[in-house]
Parts: sequence; C-alpha cells; structure tokens
Amino acid sequence: MTDVLLDKHRQRLDAAVAAIASRGYYSAFDESPSPRVYGASAAAEGKAAFEALRDRPFPLDTPGADGTVSTERSPYGFELGVAYPRVTDVDALLGAAAAGLAAWRDAGPEGRTGVCLEILDRLHARVFELANAVQHTSGQAFVMAFQAGGAHALDRALEAIAYAWNEMTRTPATAIWEKPGPKPDSEPLRMEKTFTVVPRGLALVIGCNTFPTWNSWPGLFASLATGNPVVVKPHPGAVLPLAITVQVCQEVLAEAGLDPHLVVLAAEEPDDRLAATLAVRPEVRLVDYTGGNAFGDWLEANARQAVVFTEKAGVNTIVIDSTDDFAAMCRNLAFSLSLYTGQMCTAPQNVYLPAGGIDTDEGVKTPAEVAAGIGAALDRLLGDDARAVELLGGVVNAGVVERLEAASGTGEVLVPSRSVTHPTYPDATVRTPTLVGLTADDAEVFETECFGPVAFLISTAGTDESIELFGDTVTRKGAMTAAVYSTSEQVVEQMREAALVAGVALSENLLGGVFVNQTAAYSDFHGTGANPAANASYTDAAYVAPRFRVIQSRRHV
Amino acid sequence: MTDVLLDKHRQRLDAAVAAIASRGYYSAFDESPSPRVYGASAAAEGKAAFEALRDRPFPLDTPGADGTVSTERSPYGFELGVAYPRVTDVDALLGAAAAGLAAWRDAGPEGRTGVCLEILDRLHARVFELANAVQHTSGQAFVMAFQAGGAHALDRALEAIAYAWNEMTRTPATAIWEKPGPKPDSEPLRMEKTFTVVPRGLALVIGCNTFPTWNSWPGLFASLATGNPVVVKPHPGAVLPLAITVQVCQEVLAEAGLDPHLVVLAAEEPDDRLAATLAVRPEVRLVDYTGGNAFGDWLEANARQAVVFTEKAGVNTIVIDSTDDFAAMCRNLAFSLSLYTGQMCTAPQNVYLPAGGIDTDEGVKTPAEVAAGIGAALDRLLGDDARAVELLGGVVNAGVVERLEAASGTGEVLVPSRSVTHPTYPDATVRTPTLVGLTADDAEVFETECFGPVAFLISTAGTDESIELFGDTVTRKGAMTAAVYSTSEQVVEQMREAALVAGVALSENLLGGVFVNQTAAYSDFHGTGANPAANASYTDAAYVAPRFRVIQSRRHV
Repeated sequence: MTDVLLDKHRQRLDAAVAAIASRGYYSAFDESPSPRVYGASAAAEGKAAFEALRDRPFPLDTPGADGTVSTERSPYGFELGVAYPRVTDVDALLGAAAAGLAAWRDAGPEGRTGVCLEILDRLHARVFELANAVQHTSGQAFVMAFQAGGAHALDRALEAIAYAWNEMTRTPATAIWEKPGPKPDSEPLRMEKTFTVVPRGLALVIGCNTFPTWNSWPGLFASLATGNPVVVKPHPGAVLPLAITVQVCQEVLAEAGLDPHLVVLAAEEPDDRLAATLAVRPEVRLVDYTGGNAFGDWLEANARQAVVFTEKAGVNTIVIDSTDDFAAMCRNLAFSLSLYTGQMCTAPQNVYLPAGGIDTDEGVKTPAEVAAGIGAALDRLLGDDARAVELLGGVVNAGVVERLEAASGTGEVLVPSRSVTHPTYPDATVRTPTLVGLTADDAEVFETECFGPVAFLISTAGTDESIELFGDTVTRKGAMTAAVYSTSEQVVEQMREAALVAGVALSENLLGGVFVNQTAAYSDFHGTGANPAANASYTDAAYVAPRFRVIQSRRHV
Repeated sequence: MTDVLLDKHRQRLDAAVAAIASRGYYSAFDESPSPRVYGASAAAEGKAAFEALRDRPFPLDTPGADGTVSTERSPYGFELGVAYPRVTDVDALLGAAAAGLAAWRDAGPEGRTGVCLEILDRLHARVFELANAVQHTSGQAFVMAFQAGGAHALDRALEAIAYAWNEMTRTPATAIWEKPGPKPDSEPLRMEKTFTVVPRGLALVIGCNTFPTWNSWPGLFASLATGNPVVVKPHPGAVLPLAITVQVCQEVLAEAGLDPHLVVLAAEEPDDRLAATLAVRPEVRLVDYTGGNAFGDWLEANARQAVVFTEKAGVNTIVIDSTDDFAAMCRNLAFSLSLYTGQMCTAPQNVYLPAGGIDTDEGVKTPAEVAAGIGAALDRLLGDDARAVELLGGVVNAGVVERLEAASGTGEVLVPSRSVTHPTYPDATVRTPTLVGLTADDAEVFETECFGPVAFLISTAGTDESIELFGDTVTRKGAMTAAVYSTSEQVVEQMREAALVAGVALSENLLGGVFVNQTAAYSDFHGTGANPAANASYTDAAYVAPRFRVIQSRRHV
C-alpha cells in the first residue's frame, strides 16, 4: 500500500527535490484561495467544516488522556469551544506512540515518504478548514491564514519531506562491495551490505500560537518521514490546526495498515507544563520548538537526551543608507510592519539610519522625513478599516498590546498606533504599527525583542555605525531577518559581509512584492542556525540528517 | 591558486563521491607498503625521515606557545625525544587560528576542497614517515601503522572531504527565483539569490593514543573543508603523527596564499588539561573527540557552545549460534582478537554462546571446545614470536597489562595470555590475547569495557538469551561492532532486528579475510551514533552538515 502512495505523489516529490537543488521558484499548493482555483464551494465548505468542529469534543483518540481541555479563544472575539483529550498519563502516551516504531521503520524511506505525501494531500483537501482554524487561533487575517497557515505551510512541509527523502536515500538499501585480492590471480573479497535507516526514537513537536502549522509542520514531517513517531504538543491557544493535522496523520497511517498512534496530540491546560515533562523523557530523542527564548534556552540546556531544534526570537534589523525610490521603499516597509500586526518572528523591529539623513530620489530625507514617509504609506495601506484588518489580522494576546503601549514611552513617537474596528468581528483587538524614534544610545530599548507592531527608527552617526550596531546586536541577540537599502554597491557589500559574520539572511533594496518577513519554501532558508535567534534552518540537510541513523549489516556472498 | 588544486585532484574527489553513493569498493591510497607499489627506496626514506625528527624540536610555529613539551615514548621501548611548542596562551592560539577565517570562508567550497585534497596528497607522499610515527606512538605493528595509520586513514579523510563537498555544494552559490504574477499578464517577481557556506567557528580535534591519524583526520578535514579553522590537540603519547599533519596543512595553506595558522597544534604536558580548557571556549563551535567515556561524557555535558562529535567506548559483542565452518570461524575470531593486541575500539570482547554447545560442521562444540578451537587458532597465528609481533604490535600503556592481569581473576581462564619477545625491540611489552570463561550471571564483569587483549566467552541458556543479552548490553553500554555466527537464517534475522534496535553495525558469519574490527572507508560506516559508544559515524551527512551554515542574500533583478 505504502509504495503505491509514493508512486501516486512521485511527481510532486521529484519537483520538490529539483527545486531545493536549484533554489528556483516552486510551489505545489496554490496560494490563491480564489474560487477559480479551488472551486466555487470550497470556501463555504471549509468554513462550514470549521464551524462544525466548534463547541464539541474533537474526534481524536489519545492514549494516556483523561478528560478534556478547551483552551482556545479566537482573537476575533469568541470561544472556539473545541474540547481535546487532556493528556495525563505520559507513560501511556509515549508507550502508544512507540508501539508502531518498528513497523514504521520497516516501511522504509519509500513507504514513509509515500504516507507523508498522502498526508499533505489530505491536509490540502482541508485547506479552507485549516485556514479558518489558523485564523481563529492565531488571529491572522483569512487570506494570510490560507497562505501562511495553509498553502505555504504545506510547501514547507513538502520541502522537509524532500530533504528527508534526499538524506535517507543517499545511502543505497543494499550494495555489493568487492575488493580485489592482493595479487592479480587472488580471489576478490566480496560482501553484500544492507543499510537500514533507523529513527532516533520519539520526536516531540512544540507548537506556537502565531504559526501553528507553518512552524510545526517542517519538524513534524522531517521527524515522521525519517521514521520517528511524533508527539505534537500544541500551544493551548492554537490547538485546532494541529488537532486536524494529527487527525489526518492518523487517518492515513491507519489506512496504510500502520499504527495510527505514530502521531499523537498532547493537548493540555496552560499550566500542565506538558512540554517540559515530555522534552526530558528518555524516549524523546528529537525536539522541535518554536517560541520564546526562555523556554527555548531551557530546552537546549535540559533536553540533553535529544537533538533539539529551536526557533526563538531575535531583533530583526533594517539598515537604510540611501535609495533610488523613496516612495517604494516606504511602501515596502509599511507593508512589512503591518503584516499580521508585526506578530512574526521575521518582522523588522530596528531601522537604523544616519541622523543626518539619507540620499533618495526625492533628495536628502532626515529621520523625521523617513518616518513621515513610512507613516504616509501606512495611512494609505491601513486608512480604511475594512481593508486594514485584512492585512493586520487581530492581536493574538494581551501582551502584544501591553508592549505596544509601553513602547510609546521609550522614545519619540514618530508614527502613533491606532485602533481599528473590525467590520465583522467588533470584539477583535486590531492595532496599526507604531514607529518610535531612538538614537544609538538607546541600546537597552532596541536590543530587546518587542514582539508586535512596534518598530524603532534609530538615528546613528552614519551608515558605518548602523552596520556596526546591526552586526553587534545580531551576534549577541540574534535575528531571523535583516535588510539593507542602499544605492552604493560598496555599502551593500559591507552589509553582506556583516550579515555573513553575524549569520543572518539579508534582503537588499526590497521595493516591490517581496517583503523582508517572508521567505519562499524551496528557495529561501528560514533562519540560519548561525545566530542566537534559532539553532536550525527550514530546511537544510543539517535539519534532517541528525533525525535518523544508518545501521548496516554485512556478509560474504 | 586554490581552484587549480581542485582541478588537480578532481578525479579523486569524483571517485570518492561516487563511492560513498554506491558503497562499493574504492581506495585512493594503496594499502600495500610494497616496494612494487611505492618504489624501492620509499620505506628506507620514510624511516630515515622519521629518525631525523627524533631528539630535536619539531619545526612548527605555534602562536601562544612558550617552551616545549616532549612527551612521547615508543611502546617499542625508547623515547622519541621530539619537542613540540607547548601552548600556554590560549587566547593567542585561538586568536591566531581565527585570523584567517574570513579568507578561508571566501575561498569557497572549491578552494577549500582543493586545499584539503592537496594536503592529503602531501600526507600520502610522507606515508612511510607517518607509518613510523604511528607505529612508535600507538604501538601498532609497522604494516598496520602503514595501513590503518596511513592509507586507510587517508581514505577516511578523503571520505570526509567528499561528504563535505556534497553537503556544501547541495545549495548552488547563486540562483534566480522567478515567481509568476497572479494573472497571466502580470509581471513576474524575479530575484537573484546568493548562498554562502559559512563556518560555525573554530573546531577542536582531540586525538587519541591508539589511532592518532585514523580517528582524528575525519573530523579535522570535515571541519576544515567546511571552513572552520582547526585546533588539533593530540594525545601527549601520540603527538608526532598529528604534528606532521599540521605541518603539511600549514605548508599547503601558506602556498595557497592563506593563513597557515588555520590549522594549529596544541601540544601540552599530560597534566595541562588543554582539551578541557579549549573545549569550553566560546570561539570553539565544533569538537571532535576520540577516547574514553569519562571525558567524552564530560565534553557532551560541558562543551555546550559547540557541536560535539564523540567516539567513546563500548562492549563489542559476538553471538555464536552455529557455523558450517568451525575452523574458519576460529581463525577469523583469533585474528580479530589478536590484531593490535585488541587495543581497538572495534575489537570484540563478549562472545555469547549456548552452554549446551553450538552445531558445527565438526559436530556439537561445547564452550570449552570452542575456546580450545580459538586457542588452537591463536597458537597457529601467534606461535612464532617474530610473526606474532607483526600482528600484535606492542602494548600501548601499562593499563592494558593491568586489565589483562585482572581479567584472569574474573572467571575461568580458557586460553591464557603469554608474553612475546620482540626480536627487534626486546624492551617492547607484547602479549597474546586471553579468553576467559563466564556465564550470563557475570554481568558486572562483561558489561564493562576491558580495553586490550581480553575476551569473555559467556555461556548462556541458548541463542535467544545470547541475543537478548547482546541487545540489552549494547543499548545500555554501547558498542562499535557486533557479529553473529549462525547457519539459521531465522537466527540471523533475529540478530539483525536486535542490532537495528540496539543501533549497532552487524557482521554475519565472517570466515575469510574480513574481520569484525575493520571497516572499509566509503562503504562501511564506523560507529552508528545510535548507541552510547559514539554519537556520530564516519562518515555520513549528519557528521558534516552541522559544521557549517548557509547564509543567503537576495535582491531584485
């Protein structure tokens, strides 16, 4: 059965494998929620499917669970009311997850990859339902939830599966080794060798509130494809997208004659501390985590029996030196600051520019004038509430508003935030970004991540100091993204060198439809693993190769 | 210059890359020290070159050194008298190693790989000198020192370089990404992307006494090829082979216009604890270690700023169920126990067999008869002192003799060890292996590694118990190797499954010229990383991919 699944999806796999080698454009899952792509009824059916899940127990069988938890409230202002099995017996949960390990191992790279690809196909079939689930847990606007939480997340998952496929098949399953004898007429030594991909053990995936699928699927599928049963521990605020994921995994596994509990959901009350309990269990040999630095650092320090992949937080930076299209630069930055209310680990926070101003096609612009330019672009982008909410989405939790309000006291408010009223969900909290003016002396403010719609416009003595501050901050505090605007090839070169040393990906002179906070699967790496913000990257060989081992057997033939 | 070097060695690289994919036989460096291969004068010249190094300072410039150390005594009974710069100023050493990092990074995969391949070529030109250096530090007999310390070590180094090449070139240096616009007549989004391989930082290689080159070169070249400057910390008893290595590295680097201190030697007095000091320095981001479990475990626990690759010790096991060639089995086992006096991390220690005896082509053999068979094979192999020393080599240190003597008190001595007089080096300590009879109840004896010429013949209730004991011991104590003898396909299958679960490589029914303690580069993995004996494998992608990161830059075109 399982090899049939690989055959069914082989073309998609091959295309993904080709794309990660070329780093050219590829997508297997259409990002447009348009009825022309997905059919006239898809959106309504997806919405209905989501609504049908509300206010009842989620149909999922979880070993080691007792009772249920119901922990989700939509940032758009209502309780989801979905009840999930609450894990109370970790031994039973892990025992059930491990039970199918040997059969899953024996399914081989072909069998496992086929199952994983079929899971993606089934998730894609539920992409509108997933988009609603992501929207009403993360607060992302619908189109973003469809893209980042659906199509793009599927692409990142497929990317991880393609990497796993590459790594697992790098060594053949069997080989003949024939060593010539010492003399021309000696008999050769001839051996047959078998190489088996063996999983490390159980894998734990710890999800986050803001990108429950996009940030969890790469690790989930990298571990699963390489043979490791996966325990999915969602954020209590964003369970539903991962519950649907686990449901689909179990469904496909069972259909393939495999143990459905190879993927299990570990839902909890917020205070259960299930992630910390699971992460240090001896059976757990892989941990994938997205979230705050405190728990990420704790995992790296304490989950010593496991290989731990973390994506934490950093201080994303833009250095502005000069531009030949001031208006386009302001538009591009305004979009980057607004998208999902800056609640992205990739959203820019620190914008360094010379106090004396920057050269532009509209003449020299002082920091105040740059702020005004960005402010005007924000007004055009977000002036209409109905349009604004489609970009901003909703504020995911109260901490974001608290940080936003505190930020106004840290410097000169160059662009104030405003409240937006959501036309459909009046109870949603929606805020536009603020821009706060600082100087290079305000390091204690701008060296801390201020997650949410806050950016600091930091005046420096000049671009050399901007680049120096950039390198220093990223090296010590980490960053997921960086960007530079300059018309000088020399400045760009200087910034590239600083980015190589600090270990952060760089975007140069983005003026059009690509934004610093977005990465494209198969082409852009997300995170580098080379600075404190993340110890891994979506997706490279280092993200996949340590998830399994090759065990060989040899005999004379 | 550096790309010229890649062109020069391209054929060798391509052949190695093909071999690691096919896992078929390949060797780039002839293992026969015969004058027909290496020329009539090569052996004498190599010996003379070794002698010329003795009793004087080794010509090597080491930043941060003050004075010298001279710590080597040949197991064949004389002081080497080579004096090496003693590292006293770690800041200066690490600062010098780091100085050339950016230029080495900018040499790119092509430039670095070319330099590394040229280094191998130069080391190969000094292979007889290296063989003498390995012989008189490790105690290996000359031919073994030439092979394991020279030709095979070069093959393992080339293998690591080939893996590094594969991993570094998996992502192209530049790519064009073109995303179609949302409508047929929209402008596509078009970006140029640059991907740069960036090293993690400084690498530390900690050598061992018994295999100073074979066990150090894979990590050294994996780190160097991927851009990391390397600090080589040799075992105080086996400095010379690595001093020659560092000398050759520096020579080639300097000729290529690069900083020679990209590879430095950190020699020390035995009590200087330089490895522990270096391993926790923030600049050190990679550690490769071969040696005992205590320090290996310490490194894994304490060198948290680094990725640590360890090869420690375990309990290597053979399960004997039955055989259709008793004599050949005994010969094969006798050789495996004798080779280099069992001073190999891969040498078998525990031999499990049913107390009731095993079926063979010579009828049922009881454990006592199996011991007698192995004993007779040992007598034939080692009966003549002059021939025996060419297989046994010399005892590397007093601990080996102590363990050998203590072992006789742990059970019934079935085959006693005897002292052999070396015809050329009468001061050398040479011992034949002992075989001690135990039962399954003696776990406290056989569950501990007894490094040296000691094997335990352990009587069990039957093969099922043998396999169970094997799996249990390897899971808890680790193993580098395992083997099974059985004429039953079902027993072999049972053993394969146990080896997959325990995570150890298996050899089946070795009767001829392949021995359980030997692995072939490009085909056999050395260590699995899947049991406590080692957390890594020579060589797989997981051994190389985490040594660098890819940093990207993107811009519109």
